[in-house]
This record gives sequence, C-alpha cells and structure tokens, in this order.
Amino acid sequence: MTSHTSQFKHSVHPVAAADVAAFDHETDVLVVGYGCAGAAAALEASAAGAQVTILERASGPGGSSALSGGEIYLGGGTPIQSACGFTDTAEDMATYLIHALGPNADEEKIRLYSEQSTAHYDWLVARGVPFKGSLWDNPTWVPPTDDGLMWMGESAWPYNELAAPAARGHRVQSDGFGGKVLMDELTSSVTTETSTEVHTDTRALRLVVDDTGRVCGVIARRFGTDHAYRARLGVVLTTGGFVDNDAMLEQHAPELLGKGKVSNGGDDGLGIVMAQAARAAVRRMSTGQVGIQTIPGFMARGMVVNGYGQRFINEDVYPGLVGIEALFRQDMRVWVVLDEQAYEQVPEDERWGLLPTYAAETVADLEKQMGLPENSLQHTVAEYNRHAGNGEDPWFHKSARWLRPLQSPFAAIDVRLGMAAPEGGVTGGDGAAVFTLGGLVTDVDGRVYDLDGAVLPGLYAAGRASSGLHGGGYISGTSLGPGTFFGRRAGRAAATRE
Amino acid sequence: MTSHTSQFKHSVHPVAAADVAAFDHETDVLVVGYGCAGAAAALEASAAGAQVTILERASGPGGSSALSGGEIYLGGGTPIQSACGFTDTAEDMATYLIHALGPNADEEKIRLYSEQSTAHYDWLVARGVPFKGSLWDNPTWVPPTDDGLMWMGESAWPYNELAAPAARGHRVQSDGFGGKVLMDELTSSVTTETSTEVHTDTRALRLVVDDTGRVCGVIARRFGTDHAYRARLGVVLTTGGFVDNDAMLEQHAPELLGKGKVSNGGDDGLGIVMAQAARAAVRRMSTGQVGIQTIPGFMARGMVVNGYGQRFINEDVYPGLVGIEALFRQDMRVWVVLDEQAYEQVPEDERWGLLPTYAAETVADLEKQMGLPENSLQHTVAEYNRHAGNGEDPWFHKSARWLRPLQSPFAAIDVRLGMAAPEGGVTGGDGAAVFTLGGLVTDVDGRVYDLDGAVLPGLYAAGRASSGLHGGGYISGTSLGPGTFFGRRAGRAAATRE
Repeated sequence: MTSHTSQFKHSVHPVAAADVAAFDHETDVLVVGYGCAGAAAALEASAAGAQVTILERASGPGGSSALSGGEIYLGGGTPIQSACGFTDTAEDMATYLIHALGPNADEEKIRLYSEQSTAHYDWLVARGVPFKGSLWDNPTWVPPTDDGLMWMGESAWPYNELAAPAARGHRVQSDGFGGKVLMDELTSSVTTETSTEVHTDTRALRLVVDDTGRVCGVIARRFGTDHAYRARLGVVLTTGGFVDNDAMLEQHAPELLGKGKVSNGGDDGLGIVMAQAARAAVRRMSTGQVGIQTIPGFMARGMVVNGYGQRFINEDVYPGLVGIEALFRQDMRVWVVLDEQAYEQVPEDERWGLLPTYAAETVADLEKQMGLPENSLQHTVAEYNRHAGNGEDPWFHKSARWLRPLQSPFAAIDVRLGMAAPEGGVTGGDGAAVFTLGGLVTDVDGRVYDLDGAVLPGLYAAGRASSGLHGGGYISGTSLGPGTFFGRRAGRAAATRE
Repeated sequence: MTSHTSQFKHSVHPVAAADVAAFDHETDVLVVGYGCAGAAAALEASAAGAQVTILERASGPGGSSALSGGEIYLGGGTPIQSACGFTDTAEDMATYLIHALGPNADEEKIRLYSEQSTAHYDWLVARGVPFKGSLWDNPTWVPPTDDGLMWMGESAWPYNELAAPAARGHRVQSDGFGGKVLMDELTSSVTTETSTEVHTDTRALRLVVDDTGRVCGVIARRFGTDHAYRARLGVVLTTGGFVDNDAMLEQHAPELLGKGKVSNGGDDGLGIVMAQAARAAVRRMSTGQVGIQTIPGFMARGMVVNGYGQRFINEDVYPGLVGIEALFRQDMRVWVVLDEQAYEQVPEDERWGLLPTYAAETVADLEKQMGLPENSLQHTVAEYNRHAGNGEDPWFHKSARWLRPLQSPFAAIDVRLGMAAPEGGVTGGDGAAVFTLGGLVTDVDGRVYDLDGAVLPGLYAAGRASSGLHGGGYISGTSLGPGTFFGRRAGRAAATRE
C-alpha cells in the first residue's frame, strides 16, 4: 500500500448547495450514524423541539456501540455507587480521568463530563437503561455476572494517591456484553419519545455546504442511488472512528495495523474525512485503545514482562493501560508470568479458555523456554518475590491485595497468541484488539472547528468521530459515556443553532 | 491551551483565483521557502526551463537547513566512501534505511533515494558542496574535525545483520556545523546558474486555487502588505515542519511540547495547514526526531538506563534512535551510566562541558542517589559486566568494540538536565531537541495528494513540509539529503507540469 492510496471509492469533497438540483429530504437536524452518540443527539435535538432524521449505513441501529461491553464511566456519587458503599466526588473523578486518560488529556471535557455525571446517569436511567446496585470486585474486562459496578483501575498506583479511589465502571445490566441492551433502550426511546425519522441502509458520502460556508446537508447513498438531504439547522456526525480503514491507519496510526479490530466493520473514518474535506481540523489521529488479549485476573496476580524479562507497569491498573504500554512501547512482545496458584485463583469461566504457553518447575527453565536473556526473568521474579511477602512492590507499587511470592510451578502466556473468543476460536490480532481515538476537533457542545480554529458553521460531531477526552490513555466506559453525553450536547446545540 | 485555539492570525483558507483582482507577480514555478529543499527545487525547475520565484519569510535564505549539522545521508558507493575504503550498494543502503527509519518507513521513497544516491552526490558536488574523503570513526553528533564521512549507526545490531555496514553520513566540509556551507553553495548556485527571483521578508499566507481546482498561486505578505503571486505551472511548498507551533504540537504530537526546538524559529507549519485547507492530506503528524541531549561517546562506552535502572537499547545505535526511544517510550526518564575510564576516553572538547550529575564509589550508592529501586541498577551493571569482559551483550547486542566491564568509580548523567550549548549555557528542553517529521502526503515527484487520494493539481511539496522517508525512526542526514533530492524532483515535476 502506498501512502497516497485512495481511501474511498467516491470523492469526499463537499458539494456546493447551489449544485444540488433539488433536495430529496429535509429536516432540522440531520444525525449521521445511529450508534450511542447518534441516538443521544437525536433524543436531545428532538427534546429541544427540532425535527430529526438519522442516517445509518447498516440495516439497523446499533453501530459499534451495540457490540461493546456496555460499560459507562460515571461517578461523583451515583445511586449505584451509593448502593455499593462508595462516596465519590466529581473532583476525584475528574482527577482520575485526567491522569488515566493522559498524558495530554482534554481537561475541559473531562471536568464538564465529571461535574454532570450524576445528571447524565439520571438521564440514562430515565431512558430505561438498567444498572444493578452491586459491585463486581475483581479485575476483568466484563463481569461474568450482571453486577452494575466495577473497578476501572481507580485503586491502582499512582491514581490512588492523586484522587480518592471509587469504582466508577457502570455496566449496563445484561447477560454478557451490555452494549446491545444500552442501544435497545436508546433506540426504543428515540422511537417512543420522538418523531425522529430513521433511514437505514443509507450511507452519507459527502457534506453539502452553502455559499456562506455553512454545512447544510449531506449526499447519501441508499442501494446505489444518491439522495440529497438538507439540514435546516445542523448536521451531527456520529460516524465512529477509523479502525476499519487500513489506509487511514497506515497514514496516521500504523501501530494499529494488523491488530484485532473492535468495531462492527463500519468504522471506516468516512465521517472524519468528509468533514476534513470541508476544512475541519483533526487531532490525536495516532492514538488508540488497546485491549490486551489476556485475562486481567492473571495479570494482577502474576506479572507482565517484556522481551527482556523486565516488568514495565503495575499490573493492577486498568488492563487497557497495560495494553497501550504493551503495544506502543513494547511492540506487543509481552508475556504474563504466573504460578499455578494464581492460575487456579481465576475461576475457569473467567479464563476464556486461555492456557499457558509455557510451563516450568523453575523460573530459569521458563526464562529459557521464553527465549529471554539468561538471568533476566530470574532477577525480575526474585526481586518481586523478595518484596511481595511484605506486601510491597517498590518497583511499580502494585497493590498489596495482589502481592504474593510466586512459587513453582510457573507458567507464562504469550499475549500475542490471543485468547479464545466468546464465540469460539482465537481472537488473534497479535494479542491486541484496538480502535482509534483520534478525530475531529470539537468543543464541549460538539461544534467542529476548522483549520483556522474557527467554528465550522452547521457541523457538529460526537463519539469516536471526534477527538474526545483522551490523551495517550484509555479507560473502558469513556466511549459510551462521553459518546452519549457529548452526543446529547451536540444534538441540543444543533437544534438551537448555538 | 484548548484544542481549538486558532493557530494563525489570518485565515489559511485558499483564495479563489476569480477573487484575486490582479496578480502582482507572475512566474512559472513558485517555490515557497528557501531552505535546502527550496533551493534544490529552484535549481532543477530552472534547469528544466522554467522561470522561478522563491518566497522566503526571513530576510535571507537558509531556513532551518542553514542551522543544521550539514549531514547528508548518501551511499551506494560515493567517491567519499571509496576514499575511506568502503564498498557499498544501493540495496544495503535501502535495507538499512527501511529498518532504521522504521517501523513503517516509506519503502518506495527510500529505494529511489538509495538507487540515485551517487548521482545525487555528484549533483551536490557540481553545485560546489564540499566533502572531504576522510572518516571520523567515533560516535558523535557532529565531528570536531572537518572529516567528510561518519557512521550513522550502520554497524550496530540488528542493522549489521540485515545489511552490510558502511558509513554513509556525508558531512559537508566545514569548521563546525556544515548546514551553513551547504546553503551558501546552493544559494550561490541559484544566483549563478539561474535567473530565479528571490523575494525575502515575504510570508506566504494562503494558496490561490482556480475554478478547476488547480493551485495557481499564493497570497503572501511583505511588511504588512499582501501580494498576489501567480504560478503558471506549479507551487512548490518547502516551508519546513511545525515544531515552532505549539498549538499544532498539542493537536498532533504532544510528546514534543516543552522540548528544545531544532529550527530557525520559522517552522510554524503554515505551509502544511494552508495546503490542508485546499484538501491536501497529511500523514504521520505524531512523529518526530529526538536529539537526546547527551554525548554519544558516553552512551556507547557506558549504558543508558530508564527510571527502573533497566537498559532498553544497544547504546551504539545512531543516537537519535536512543532519543526516540527515550522520549516516546521512556518519557525522557533516562540516565547515562558510565565509569571514570569511559568518561576520560571521550576527549574534553567532545564532552560539550557535560559533567556527571551523580558520582559514587559503588553502583549501590549511585543507584540510591539516582532514586532507582534497590537492586535495579546493581543487577543491570552486574549482568552487563558479567558478559562485557567476553565482548558479549546478550541483552542488546552492543558491539564488542564498546564492551568492557564498568569499574569504580561510577557516574551517572541525568539526560533531562541537558548539556552545555556551543554558545554557552545549557540546552535544556528536558533533555531533548526535537523537530517534526509528519507532513503532506507526496509521491516521489513531490506531487501533493488530496483527501480523495488524487493528485492536487499544481501543488508540490518537499522537505519537512512533506512526510518523507520516515516511519517511527530518524537518522541524521535524512533531512538535507532527501530534502534536496525530492526538492529537485518536485522542482522538475512542477516545471514540466508532470
């Protein structure tokens, strides 16, 4: 692939309104993409009195949101937190996010999101989104129960010294992944609460811009026919990221190439690029979330080492942060090292079929099997064990809860081999399941900014099409949470033409 | 700084040719920026028969090129290489660059540059650029002599196993930094060989685009007055990178914020952004070169460790590659650890006034002073010493030339403190001097590509305004070398309207 490969089969350049012979459809607010951010934008724009049409390229709503675990990062004292015995403040929540999503996180967005988090919880509940007031108190990607609250690394060092720890991972009550339940409730609210028109199988291709430079519609294709949509008030792009577009990854985030893709297949970045073609600015296009394909309970109870047998992080941080370090700083050359006791302590149904790649009676033998330098892993385990008995980890400050000298027999899991997927088979993806975090430059009301640093009139964005709270880090729940929160704000801003 | 801060005080949006009342100046090829790429473009466009005008925002030519060390990466068997006893092939040169500038380097550009490298050497020499046929055979940023050839990490592992090592760092003969000599010769060639007009103190602000979408000029400001320039054949942007624009760094490469800037102060990214406003595509905007502010001879003879006392790279690679690892993967929390013998082996005039931050009789004491975990550096030095006596480094494969057990007394240099600058004082910059590598998407003839993946008619780019050979890595000499090489190709392509 050369760097100047065309990314799309049609032109993404905007169309002048004067060149549109006639608009086939007209509405107040046109929402492009019917995932969580699109649903939230439609609900709020409708609540503000606007007529709304949603365009969705798939045959039904959901997007990548519906395939997600259903985690929503909320705090500051929600009823679910109270039921689980946590007190929390918006300030602590913001401080945690600024550091865990950093470096270089968007403090303005984080502070607003944290301050209005309990109100956003209420809004979700009023839409029928269910949360159960019980805590799942073990490291995991998704709880095997329907518990409504989980830790997202808040109690790990150094975050526990910066802000009072409280569990803030609100997980939509469900049997398994909760994204589908969230989207069912949001789309059902769109249907019952609003008169929103939903046009499925309709893929937006280009923006329409009027002679004042205002975005006033889109050209969209449905079953091979192009339709012109006019938006009297604004267009809200909630089209997702670009993990499914390898040409864009090669351009902006080549580390993510060849990894597993967390998406519904439609995250091709077209919404981002069609806005860029109207001179919208983008930011942080190189960043991504990295779901390291291993079991968080194994990592916390054992250790994670790189290709030199060196630890590089406290293994009880949110596992996505281990993944980001593993991919961007260790080229995914990482192993989970543990002992039999640690392996057995994770219940079988939480192991996702993951078996040790190597097993050995001694660390020296394990080290040799793993192809590490002699006396590398041996030193790491010896130092770990020397302090673990005292509940200490002077190197990386893992919590005493997880510290115990590792004992023979030992095992190591090569993360690059991936793990068994829920539907059977192995996830592959070189040990990482990723999606992109970069996107359009927006303010807290979803207004898109252009290359002059000025508002691009008529255009709004939310969800993964926009650059959100994130700097270099990612915590689960910061896609669905801010996606719905800033989706709502974008919908309201578009409806009121703010 | 918020993410939507305006970057420039004027609009960067292109101006329609129809809105230009009258053009104040007209030429065939308009070159914007008079550094090495601009000079090369002007020379080659003129040689192809085009009338050329160069716009330069400063009061004279040179740009950041004139402040550089004057290293030009050339190989495949140049006369200088032959004089120093090296045989070399374009294939070995390309293989080295693909790996040293990677991952994800631009193989097409690298192969062409390598294949035509000896011819490009001849072209430079014909322009009067002097090279001396002698080798400086020690690690350094810039030789303290006027030797014309230096190693750029070619003999370090793993590169020495991938391609036959040959020194390829051609350094313009000079007393000190050679960039000034290079620019003097190139600008003198422009003056004597061509009828190029040079308009200094003239800053291009916006592109002019005709009604077919072709770039046909620029609007430029000179002493507060705007001038319209028409380019009958093409505009070549050689405006440099964006390290001087903190808003752009915050958007795309936040790791580079707060570091020392390698530039003449004019690398504000305006050329890139004005092209983006005409729908040009960019790539790899997050990447950068990192000049680690320490002495390569200290690193090679000692070791570089991170905040956990761990080595992370063989210290005899090109020092810029140590810098890139140090900044992007170790947050610049790095130290050079060495012993008295290693310190003394670097002649005083090559130490740039750098003094140890810590000194100690034992590694245990040094480790404590450095604030590292107990038994971290001790283990690292013990393992290093255990093998160094045999000329081996099973961890990182540093060359036997640099391996020797380190002996008391020991010292450590905190890289973040920077080093003494040539003009006195300390460089600061948190231990790193950086510039950006991302920019406009171009093909090997400098044609700029738009967001559709199509050629943007009339627009060309070279030098740091474009994304060049680089993936994640950087080797000195790959700015001036490809800058002049692809600058020449862009100038010719523009002149012949290819």
